[in-house]
Amino acid sequence: MVPPRPSAVAPRTLAADLTRATPGSPVRLQGWVHRRRELAALTFLVVRDRTGLAQVVVKDGPDGRPAVPPEETTVEVVGTATANPQAPGGVEITDPVITALTEPAATPPVELWRPSLNASLPTLLDHAPVTWRHPAQRAKWELAAASLRGFRATLDAAGFTEIQTPKFVASATESGANVFEVDYFGRPAYLAQSPQFYKQQMVGVFERVYEVGPVFRAEPHDTVRHLAEYVSLDAELGFVEDHRDVLRVLRDVVAGMVTAIHEYAGGAVALTGARVPVVPEEIPVLHFRDALALVGAPEDEPDLAPEHERALGAWALEEHGSDFLAVEGYPMAKRPFYTHPQPDDPRWSNSFDLLFRGLELVTGGQRLHRPSAYDEAIRARGEDPATYAAYLQSFEHGMPPHGGFAIGLERWTARLVEATNVREVTLFPRDLHRLTP
Amino acid sequence: MVPPRPSAVAPRTLAADLTRATPGSPVRLQGWVHRRRELAALTFLVVRDRTGLAQVVVKDGPDGRPAVPPEETTVEVVGTATANPQAPGGVEITDPVITALTEPAATPPVELWRPSLNASLPTLLDHAPVTWRHPAQRAKWELAAASLRGFRATLDAAGFTEIQTPKFVASATESGANVFEVDYFGRPAYLAQSPQFYKQQMVGVFERVYEVGPVFRAEPHDTVRHLAEYVSLDAELGFVEDHRDVLRVLRDVVAGMVTAIHEYAGGAVALTGARVPVVPEEIPVLHFRDALALVGAPEDEPDLAPEHERALGAWALEEHGSDFLAVEGYPMAKRPFYTHPQPDDPRWSNSFDLLFRGLELVTGGQRLHRPSAYDEAIRARGEDPATYAAYLQSFEHGMPPHGGFAIGLERWTARLVEATNVREVTLFPRDLHRLTP
Repeated sequence: MVPPRPSAVAPRTLAADLTRATPGSPVRLQGWVHRRRELAALTFLVVRDRTGLAQVVVKDGPDGRPAVPPEETTVEVVGTATANPQAPGGVEITDPVITALTEPAATPPVELWRPSLNASLPTLLDHAPVTWRHPAQRAKWELAAASLRGFRATLDAAGFTEIQTPKFVASATESGANVFEVDYFGRPAYLAQSPQFYKQQMVGVFERVYEVGPVFRAEPHDTVRHLAEYVSLDAELGFVEDHRDVLRVLRDVVAGMVTAIHEYAGGAVALTGARVPVVPEEIPVLHFRDALALVGAPEDEPDLAPEHERALGAWALEEHGSDFLAVEGYPMAKRPFYTHPQPDDPRWSNSFDLLFRGLELVTGGQRLHRPSAYDEAIRARGEDPATYAAYLQSFEHGMPPHGGFAIGLERWTARLVEATNVREVTLFPRDLHRLTP
Repeated sequence: MVPPRPSAVAPRTLAADLTRATPGSPVRLQGWVHRRRELAALTFLVVRDRTGLAQVVVKDGPDGRPAVPPEETTVEVVGTATANPQAPGGVEITDPVITALTEPAATPPVELWRPSLNASLPTLLDHAPVTWRHPAQRAKWELAAASLRGFRATLDAAGFTEIQTPKFVASATESGANVFEVDYFGRPAYLAQSPQFYKQQMVGVFERVYEVGPVFRAEPHDTVRHLAEYVSLDAELGFVEDHRDVLRVLRDVVAGMVTAIHEYAGGAVALTGARVPVVPEEIPVLHFRDALALVGAPEDEPDLAPEHERALGAWALEEHGSDFLAVEGYPMAKRPFYTHPQPDDPRWSNSFDLLFRGLELVTGGQRLHRPSAYDEAIRARGEDPATYAAYLQSFEHGMPPHGGFAIGLERWTARLVEATNVREVTLFPRDLHRLTP
């Protein structure tokens, strides 16, 4: 079944390392046929691997010109490293023996070899397994992957413990709306809308915890910002004074994500033209009340409208030279029941939204920690605390003042590359209409 | 709502850092009342934080002896660092001012201050938010968290890209059995039993990928080894010669997990008495056919029984001094349809199981990569390749020879601490009977 392969004349050379190959030495390249250009006297072959592109020159031999498989076929190329200032990295491969590693590839749905991918969003998504191969598309995910690495590294260094909490839950976390129901061995269960309850409970164990994982929202609206499933970067920490301590950790986390992007995805930044922000030492903070006044909204407005957020983003940039602005003190009425009120005026909350370039990126804040406060807050919603018995165990048995935040990975990456739709930066988006590929 | 707190006379001191405090200097500790011992002339208070335990000596003052809140209440202790060779770390806190950070804690369902936690499994699980606070219990998860860190660090260093793939899928991945059905906006969807199809597709993009995340199995059997939801550590890589290349990467990954345990969870190893293995430079490999012969099983046996795995584990230890043994070549008939056959004898497969101390820990192997091979394999199952159209796109458009593996996090940790039931090392297990806490 498997074709014989040429004996390994050399260990595999990655495209990015070709530039360091000694001219005249044998090299062995493996990758995809990125581009095949047949000219009168020779064929130019560009091979793509995980590190970049390499040029292979195929000349006529005694039996004519060797066949080159069509684009996207995987190949092994054994040849000679040859200096050529015109080749990428200054080195190309000559006198190649080309072996296909699979059957000739079908023509891709989009031309992956073109410098930019001019495909409609439905085409991109319908053919995601193939369209993600385009270097500029793939680079978007590299920004996301580097960000995950920076998120974890920052929190690891700050004494946080990674947790993995269940996605099957007995009742809705945030609200009964938008929750997916599962047939769980013949009875109903739900998919967690966030790890909120679990990360709080684990503060009781580890003090500082984080989790990276999928969250599920049965979002009935078809918008450019919402998905039925997305990746949530959650953190929670105990022994805080108030939400400002949480915001300080968030600042360091976002700075760590930016550092990781520069360190591990510099090439992806260049390819996507991503606008990677500079994170200020201290993120400017505005109280919700002052934010309303600043944008000229009525003082009894319960929330910030998208145009308000945009105006605040512009203000933060002009006034503080910052791409980030934290709005604190959101009205208690608009926050979940576990939100801690502002001690001197309980109409407001010790919570915040972090705006990044005028769009909400993160929600966070201080949570209630006294059992009596939970009892009161749950009854005030007209609910029975017994419904939350499992969750409330932690508080009855001693919890510290604590708080945390959640970053939506897709929203973050979308903002970096200025994608208007989060689907452009999601490997396989799930929404009202899409369940495949 | 929030009680006034003593002004911060000193930045917070963590219990583990108390040993370095200058005697006579002011310290500020925060944590849980781990143990309160009232003696005739004084009260000994042990405070627990994320780094360990600290001793506080409470003596009678002018107004009698200060009240000490009950165990598990969160407190702030401001006092003086004082040398005492009998105290943990040689330093205790004297002249303390103790402030409770919440209401007096209810008595825990188990005595968390006892050196070992003698609770039944149902008690442990029913009260998980509190029982995980026990240092020896908590240490089990620290082994898991360190392992995750080692898994990712090893693969990051080897050029792998982290991916996050959807848990909502349109059809079952591995088989129609044991799949959870979700009401997905009024139509059926399923929860991914593994990221298998997606990680393969992403090999077409990144060559080398990994994913850490939940997988879902509607496991109808109530066993000590199965959960309805568990954490799968998946990796997949392209341009392999065969499954032996995959096994070599797996070896490095397991070695990296072990290194991370020693580096980040040394205290947890001591507390749990975990038997952390030494990973041999090369993991011994036995063909399935020879494994059957070795344990004296009939040569047409299609799988290894648990007692066979135990016998093989004992053999590997005796013969090779290894806690690990890879059994390769499992019969094709018992492996999933995407499994690559053994080139010289297609009754066998290019797949393996990694046994760790006589129990299956990892399944891995080489996958098919030619579109014609998929077409044939799917038809041989009596299925229509059109059902797999989204998945098959990758192969039609060029895939390299590739393979991968999946490690079950809970099985790994259970083996380290010799837990007989995976539930003992799962933060909030989910099974046939359990959906809460």
